[in-house]
Amino acid sequence: MTKINNNYSKLPGSYLFSTIAKKVREFESANPDAEIIRLGIGDVTKPLAPAVIEALNKAVEEMAGEETFKGYAPDLGYDFLREKIAMYDYSNRHCDISADEIFVSDGAKCDCANIQEIFSTDNTIGVCDPVYPVYVDSNVMAGRTGVYNHDTMRFDNVIYMPCNADNGFVPQLPKEAPDLIYLCFPNNPTGAVINKDELQKWVDYAKKNKSVILYDAAYEAYISEVDIPHSIYECEGAKKCAIEFRSFSKTAGFTGLRLGYTVVPKELIIEGASLHDMWARRHGTKYNGAPYIVQRAGEAIYTEAGRSQIKEQINYYMLNAKIILEGVKEAGYEAYGGVNAPYIWLKTPENMSSWEFFDYLLETANVVGTPGVGFGPEGENYYRLTAFGNRNKTIEAIRRIKEA
Amino acid sequence: MTKINNNYSKLPGSYLFSTIAKKVREFESANPDAEIIRLGIGDVTKPLAPAVIEALNKAVEEMAGEETFKGYAPDLGYDFLREKIAMYDYSNRHCDISADEIFVSDGAKCDCANIQEIFSTDNTIGVCDPVYPVYVDSNVMAGRTGVYNHDTMRFDNVIYMPCNADNGFVPQLPKEAPDLIYLCFPNNPTGAVINKDELQKWVDYAKKNKSVILYDAAYEAYISEVDIPHSIYECEGAKKCAIEFRSFSKTAGFTGLRLGYTVVPKELIIEGASLHDMWARRHGTKYNGAPYIVQRAGEAIYTEAGRSQIKEQINYYMLNAKIILEGVKEAGYEAYGGVNAPYIWLKTPENMSSWEFFDYLLETANVVGTPGVGFGPEGENYYRLTAFGNRNKTIEAIRRIKEA
Repeated sequence: MTKINNNYSKLPGSYLFSTIAKKVREFESANPDAEIIRLGIGDVTKPLAPAVIEALNKAVEEMAGEETFKGYAPDLGYDFLREKIAMYDYSNRHCDISADEIFVSDGAKCDCANIQEIFSTDNTIGVCDPVYPVYVDSNVMAGRTGVYNHDTMRFDNVIYMPCNADNGFVPQLPKEAPDLIYLCFPNNPTGAVINKDELQKWVDYAKKNKSVILYDAAYEAYISEVDIPHSIYECEGAKKCAIEFRSFSKTAGFTGLRLGYTVVPKELIIEGASLHDMWARRHGTKYNGAPYIVQRAGEAIYTEAGRSQIKEQINYYMLNAKIILEGVKEAGYEAYGGVNAPYIWLKTPENMSSWEFFDYLLETANVVGTPGVGFGPEGENYYRLTAFGNRNKTIEAIRRIKEA
Repeated sequence: MTKINNNYSKLPGSYLFSTIAKKVREFESANPDAEIIRLGIGDVTKPLAPAVIEALNKAVEEMAGEETFKGYAPDLGYDFLREKIAMYDYSNRHCDISADEIFVSDGAKCDCANIQEIFSTDNTIGVCDPVYPVYVDSNVMAGRTGVYNHDTMRFDNVIYMPCNADNGFVPQLPKEAPDLIYLCFPNNPTGAVINKDELQKWVDYAKKNKSVILYDAAYEAYISEVDIPHSIYECEGAKKCAIEFRSFSKTAGFTGLRLGYTVVPKELIIEGASLHDMWARRHGTKYNGAPYIVQRAGEAIYTEAGRSQIKEQINYYMLNAKIILEGVKEAGYEAYGGVNAPYIWLKTPENMSSWEFFDYLLETANVVGTPGVGFGPEGENYYRLTAFGNRNKTIEAIRRIKEA
């Protein structure tokens, strides 16, 4: 008799964005003339860069020709892309990562969710609070957590590391060391970053405690300040204790094209086993490579034209971020992020709950963001705005927030 | 202290294709003038159909425009594609499957490997022998099997269902019912098919024993005979006990483009839980949708032009299959498959082992296929040839095999 994976029943349901959608629909039908501006979901809006389009067109043409057609891609990615990544994202930043330590995939979300499979279900996990839900949910499904406690809004057997204004949204080193430590910088949802000295402490801590850091650097392209590490491998010894995830989604607008990669250094040996070899085995068995045309599109962002065009896109979004951050501050709000990340993390006024503030902003300014509590209990009394919108709408949203 | 997933150490290593590559390299360096013909790997060689290329070009253009750009795709697939699949692959064959029971993904390999995640690790699995290795290996990694026994070439705690000439390569119903039953028809590697009456017996057996059938129909487009079911949902009651996997890889040459789908009927309820909802949750948490441009390419195979063009490709490969099957029979071999599948399953002469025959064919005919034993012990004394090659090379390979 077939039995299901009962761990799925521990998941409380992902109601955040569906609740938002429902509230917005209700408001719209009650106020048909309201022009709602959405600064909620972290999806890009600018079209693909011309260099990327050119590469796609060329690759599609290759797929049409008998001599140039490409079938199965190498499981771990085409060398032409892995070599560009190694050079531009690592060598050029003085990180010693070789092309064959880079595993190309269809996105950082999948990799962040799948990486736990190569670890024992006995491991404990540590996550920031607030947190991108995929880290926790994928571990719940695998049975690495206890049940969900609706009062504390937390799963049993998970080490939550609070991130709040007191610690600059960078967690303290936990007393009980998690076996697997999820870190994300620049952070989603808070927009916070970690400096190199602080990150080095995490690397040292992981090495000392024989933990592995799962480092999500999906937003590194948004770092504008010097001294902020773009990769965990800028830290001494990280190759012995850290796996890094990168995405083309926010870097180059690939959310609908799907491309990312994971770095698993060969020096990362746990219990005598090479995590690099295990991840290669996982890729080879459960994955079949990213599409050739998409890998060619990815390669194009490393050309001179591509680099300059995606820089322009990022500047566009970061000017939005600046407009939002300065605007809400002028409106009297306490706000964080927005300097090295496309997210602005706003403190609700007068201890309004995240959802009260959601309703307030929807009603008075017709602006939609994301209630911070949706990312964890420490996100209560916070609200996330994203910089991925259209410039004019962003300006209009801020005008209305100021007026409200 | 981090602990690894020790189940990975049970995997004996996937040496089949690397051993083949090594042997071929050695032969090539010893015989630099030999023109080797490869009929081993199941990858397509024809370029994408014009209708597919046209759809890709149009979709790429959309990604270049501010108004038409597409970001994140719906997790479960775009409706435009799910509706075409429901109509052409199911309604038109009198199967009552609705668009929202179809989950679009980046390929059947991933889905076949990932589907086990929604089931308990306590379930027993049943697989054909010989078998596509992904079914077994993904379960090994999840801890659903015992250790690998090098003498029997089998994992403990797996129910192997022998497929051989005596049973027409269609397994008997096992005495001990597996909780999860993997079936693949048309079969890789044997090229065998199952008729509707026989498949109905499996559906009845699964319902009686409360088992779930995981039905891999990746090669259904190659079925040429009537009375052979294209979908398990042609059988009465299958919606209560079966999940079906489909691929665009062999149907339309998408091996390098990556697109497939899985059907999980809403009626499929196990222990009170909807497998449809569980798979939706798995997709939502661990996957981020297939690329928009690839889904548009998939949609194009359902246009009138697309249908006729992919039919032509399949006819091309199936004429290769006919040439191979008739050729090896004329050469005196016993051979199977090749009528409803792109694979020819050849019995080695005089009880030569699969690997002895590999060496023999490489040396005497400079032809490379796949040793049957690589797919399981029942594949010993068999050899797989694929119909995905170029026509002239296929003809030449057969000429040489006859001469050898």
